Amino acid sequence: METISAAKSFGGTQGVYRHKSEACNCDMVFALFMPPKAAQERVPLLWFLSGLTCTHQNVMDKGEYRRLAAELGIAVICPDTSPRGDDVPDEPENWQFGKGAGFYLDATQAPFNRNYRMATYIAEELPLLVGQNFALDMDRQSICGHSMGGHGAITIALRNPGRYRSVSAFAPIAQPSTAGWSRPAFEKYLGADESAWRTYDSTLLIEDGYRLPELLIDQGTADGFLDDGLRPHLLQEACSKANIPLTLNMRDGYDHSYFFISTFIDDHLRWHGERLRK
Amino acid sequence: METISAAKSFGGTQGVYRHKSEACNCDMVFALFMPPKAAQERVPLLWFLSGLTCTHQNVMDKGEYRRLAAELGIAVICPDTSPRGDDVPDEPENWQFGKGAGFYLDATQAPFNRNYRMATYIAEELPLLVGQNFALDMDRQSICGHSMGGHGAITIALRNPGRYRSVSAFAPIAQPSTAGWSRPAFEKYLGADESAWRTYDSTLLIEDGYRLPELLIDQGTADGFLDDGLRPHLLQEACSKANIPLTLNMRDGYDHSYFFISTFIDDHLRWHGERLRK
Repeated sequence: METISAAKSFGGTQGVYRHKSEACNCDMVFALFMPPKAAQERVPLLWFLSGLTCTHQNVMDKGEYRRLAAELGIAVICPDTSPRGDDVPDEPENWQFGKGAGFYLDATQAPFNRNYRMATYIAEELPLLVGQNFALDMDRQSICGHSMGGHGAITIALRNPGRYRSVSAFAPIAQPSTAGWSRPAFEKYLGADESAWRTYDSTLLIEDGYRLPELLIDQGTADGFLDDGLRPHLLQEACSKANIPLTLNMRDGYDHSYFFISTFIDDHLRWHGERLRK
Repeated sequence: METISAAKSFGGTQGVYRHKSEACNCDMVFALFMPPKAAQERVPLLWFLSGLTCTHQNVMDKGEYRRLAAELGIAVICPDTSPRGDDVPDEPENWQFGKGAGFYLDATQAPFNRNYRMATYIAEELPLLVGQNFALDMDRQSICGHSMGGHGAITIALRNPGRYRSVSAFAPIAQPSTAGWSRPAFEKYLGADESAWRTYDSTLLIEDGYRLPELLIDQGTADGFLDDGLRPHLLQEACSKANIPLTLNMRDGYDHSYFFISTFIDDHLRWHGERLRK
């Protein structure tokens, strides 16, 4: 693992690191903020999974998570959203597939199955790496994400019961297997048999019996993707049927951007912080 | 004036606007955050002048000023750092001169004097424009800046006594007329006669009798430009001789980046906020 950069921020360290990923078969970069408390003891870890087109950098630059994470003593990790590199198959003109659009799944279809294994990367490989290299208490993890990353956070948490103390999302893609902007990617990554898609769809995982203790979602009412791409009501229905307590905050006038995320990131940090206490 | 974008953020609006600048003889873009309080009454305005290579966008994305500005009811304007456009003379390979490096002065030398008139733009044209178009109380203005923008904030405030209620800077260029990274720009913009440079140099303006009521500066000790480019001790000496109360906070381990600025922006916002009260 190589340190690309490390800067003092709010008394802690905002680092950017590169490592060789076995899951993705390429070099991967992630951002990790370690709060000042990590100088004294192992600290809990919050995952932030980003949305389409993003790298680790978007939320690192615009998420405004460090002030409160430093105060609460929480580390925040911001992974990339796909494998990267010249050898990774891609559709450069398509922002909804390929690089920047890994959808947090393990592709089964060639040629994508060689690199697009973000589910394994996020849930298995990267936790092991950071647990070994940083002062993290890996028994205290929580996960959140935005848009495609909200989908990633919820599906990964559903498939790994007990792993994360808490799960939240900003404007998550509730049902990617039926949304126009994600269906083509699912077919290319996973094949035409839609039964294989269920394991990467929050609403269908819940339908299939996977459970979360509770869920926090913030969604802007002025989000241009709300009605076609995101559809929180589908998640609301699934949670309701499954008796999963869902806090869905519809935020009047907010859009899909980091201006929305940064406005409400403190609420999510406090919510996770309460559940990450020893 | 044209609205490029407007997003709800912390209950207010983060906008980006384009207008035809007479001073700079080109289209100019600026960012303006209006706090929620502006829906009820005219609000005070804090200027944030950015550093070399920046546009309006760097601090808008990474400055983390909106949360507290919204709470304190302060508008924050983030102008560009130079004229822009294909017709503007430039040295594209030189990040210390031309576009992104206007140094907040009015150039007198051809061909730069046609566009590079950032002193007039920031102190005269832009205040008039935003005062006419937004719910701003222009009798309550303060100014701050980073690096080249710290130089800009202090020199503009010194030359306009009484205009700004308060002045602060992050890692300002204390004496640009003698620093290696700014001398060549000063010569190209202002000519070889160094006496003409004094009006754009904080320390020399103070030597020449210009005054501020007080000054707040934060400076990281791990800033790679500290010893050669920034040299806060020169400003400290000038303020000391002139009896200008200077609060110079040397911040252990912080660098020159927005990770440094965002860590201490709340301190500056509170300091300005106290002085911007009715």
